[in-house]
Amino acid sequence: MTLSTQPYKGTRDFYPEELAKRNYIFNTWRKVLIASGFVEYDCSILESAEMYLAKSGEELGSKQLYAFEDKGERKIALRPEMTPSLARMVAGKFRELKFPLRWFSIPNCFRYERPQKGRTREFWQLNADIIGLEAGEADLEILLLLGKTFLEFGATKEMFSIRYGHRGLLDEWINKNNLNDKKEAVYALLDNWRKLVGDKKLAFATESGLTENEFKIVFQMVENPNQIDTTSFAEIALIQKTLPSILPEVEFVFDPTIVRGIAYYTGLVFEAFDHNPENNRAMFGGGRYDNLLELFNQKSPAVGVGVGDLTWHEFLVGWNLYPENLSETTKVGIMALNRNSLTEIFGKTIPKLISENKLYEVNYEYERSENKRYDALKKRGCGEVIKI
Amino acid sequence: MTLSTQPYKGTRDFYPEELAKRNYIFNTWRKVLIASGFVEYDCSILESAEMYLAKSGEELGSKQLYAFEDKGERKIALRPEMTPSLARMVAGKFRELKFPLRWFSIPNCFRYERPQKGRTREFWQLNADIIGLEAGEADLEILLLLGKTFLEFGATKEMFSIRYGHRGLLDEWINKNNLNDKKEAVYALLDNWRKLVGDKKLAFATESGLTENEFKIVFQMVENPNQIDTTSFAEIALIQKTLPSILPEVEFVFDPTIVRGIAYYTGLVFEAFDHNPENNRAMFGGGRYDNLLELFNQKSPAVGVGVGDLTWHEFLVGWNLYPENLSETTKVGIMALNRNSLTEIFGKTIPKLISENKLYEVNYEYERSENKRYDALKKRGCGEVIKI
Repeated sequence: MTLSTQPYKGTRDFYPEELAKRNYIFNTWRKVLIASGFVEYDCSILESAEMYLAKSGEELGSKQLYAFEDKGERKIALRPEMTPSLARMVAGKFRELKFPLRWFSIPNCFRYERPQKGRTREFWQLNADIIGLEAGEADLEILLLLGKTFLEFGATKEMFSIRYGHRGLLDEWINKNNLNDKKEAVYALLDNWRKLVGDKKLAFATESGLTENEFKIVFQMVENPNQIDTTSFAEIALIQKTLPSILPEVEFVFDPTIVRGIAYYTGLVFEAFDHNPENNRAMFGGGRYDNLLELFNQKSPAVGVGVGDLTWHEFLVGWNLYPENLSETTKVGIMALNRNSLTEIFGKTIPKLISENKLYEVNYEYERSENKRYDALKKRGCGEVIKI
Repeated sequence: MTLSTQPYKGTRDFYPEELAKRNYIFNTWRKVLIASGFVEYDCSILESAEMYLAKSGEELGSKQLYAFEDKGERKIALRPEMTPSLARMVAGKFRELKFPLRWFSIPNCFRYERPQKGRTREFWQLNADIIGLEAGEADLEILLLLGKTFLEFGATKEMFSIRYGHRGLLDEWINKNNLNDKKEAVYALLDNWRKLVGDKKLAFATESGLTENEFKIVFQMVENPNQIDTTSFAEIALIQKTLPSILPEVEFVFDPTIVRGIAYYTGLVFEAFDHNPENNRAMFGGGRYDNLLELFNQKSPAVGVGVGDLTWHEFLVGWNLYPENLSETTKVGIMALNRNSLTEIFGKTIPKLISENKLYEVNYEYERSENKRYDALKKRGCGEVIKI
């Protein structure tokens, strides 16, 4: 029998060239996060299935979940997202942990869906969360973190923007405009705003139960977001006052169409947008979810973001932001001039057995300390290293 | 309903303190491998189940396998080891790849077994392989790589040894001693040699079908391995001649009891031993397996090693080899002296909004470039950084 050499549907093989790209993204994310005071955590990709099924009614809890039974009849699942695991870990050591936490992880997750451009069944996702701080500086901090992450990859202002809204502000506006009993319809309309082109906005609105007049009220608000009084939540006031001067290299925009679905988030919500005309879309998002630990009967305020590896990869490709040489090794040539030098060179590089008076091309980490080592070899007349 | 905060049985949560240890191990492995000319690859943890079931009769192919069906009725499995995936990837691009390959990966794997000390259902395993080189220098290279990996962690000669054998040599010896029809029994006896204490060796041998006299022949050979002529395989001659001078800091020992089970390996076999009296055992092993691509109807010589994260962790703990401070962040204090400095400090650290004349303790990557930055701040009288 000959087996197929294809990977499982919706998953990817990372040959060294592709893994170098993934490592570049992950390591750059890590660099920004660690520099911002975040620490990394991880856990198993296998979790109890009930953790996802508990949130019934959601897509993740049912048809997209890779759930099965182990040989001991435990119901287990491959995580479709990291947040429930994060909540489990934080709740599990709630009394020992020193809050606030600034935690990040870059887990792989599985969702059973039709693979298509920019979507695979297995994906990696940067999760960065601040846990234990109420709305305020932490919300600002997450937005800054995102902006700086883009900058670290060499992105410039014209390439992307970070757009944010606030559920509390939107609820206030809905209340002021007597749309309280149409709240779900307004949220749904705003959530789909960008996808609905031209007439489709009104059609969607009426289907959702809004009158034409109510639609107009929403439409005018989106056209002129200034009519939303943004002063009643301190974190938004803080963001608007502080962000432009702290990180002028990044475009932060208040945008009332950012609502991030109907459930889950409790305050600030945000999304990052790729400005590439061929790739113009929301790359990822996040926000405040003070209900994080609910499943585990604990309470703690939290704000966080999840960034997928694929959309980030496409952003870098679209704007040509990958560095030219991602290989972690540098080619050097080693010329062994006499027998004495063989073991000395071998002691560090072991590319293959080296014969005298022959130039070997090898992959080798070209560090300053190594330069010294080879300088010494050279001085003693027993070897030569040439950077290729 | 309140959910349990425990991870799934046999898996581990990596809180930041534990993950720092794991990262230290993985990053040090990476460093040695990259410096030795290896490149990293990866693939999905989900594979077609038939890849493992194809090797029928083995434990991994049946009761230890996490196998299940996806919603499209594909039979899939969580990989129990990386080698079949490696073979799949190499076979899949056999004509494009430039051999020899020096490839490594640090995947997580799952095996359904009873969790106990040093054994979990989920484990990570460094896989390093040289593919496309016949027995010879590549065998030497793998042993050197292992030795240098131990040294990179600060291990010294008394802490460990690397013991190697050779199936071809053993077969020759078996043939010379007319034990050909008892070959399996001899292999099984040698494979269990260290576990069988005192009388149990003979008992095991007779149960396996060896006569008392045949047992004596094996016993004397193990007591005096010199009676095995090690010159008939060039790679062993090369190892014995070259290793002591190349890496005198490591104890390499020819040991005919190293056979690594009955199947799979085709030449050199080796194991690393922890000398810690409380942890005295084989940590991991590897060898030559020129049948690597068999499942995919290709042929290529290969030699490789698999190193588990748990035994390595226990080795480091046992010999107290973990560095004291593994945290990737360094604590510094930031004193903002006036309003002008706020945005400047913010621009890099954003730990929280900073008030004037107050010392904040923050986690911050303490780089030399940052020192300069803060020196400049200090000179201009608008800020102060104190390393804590």
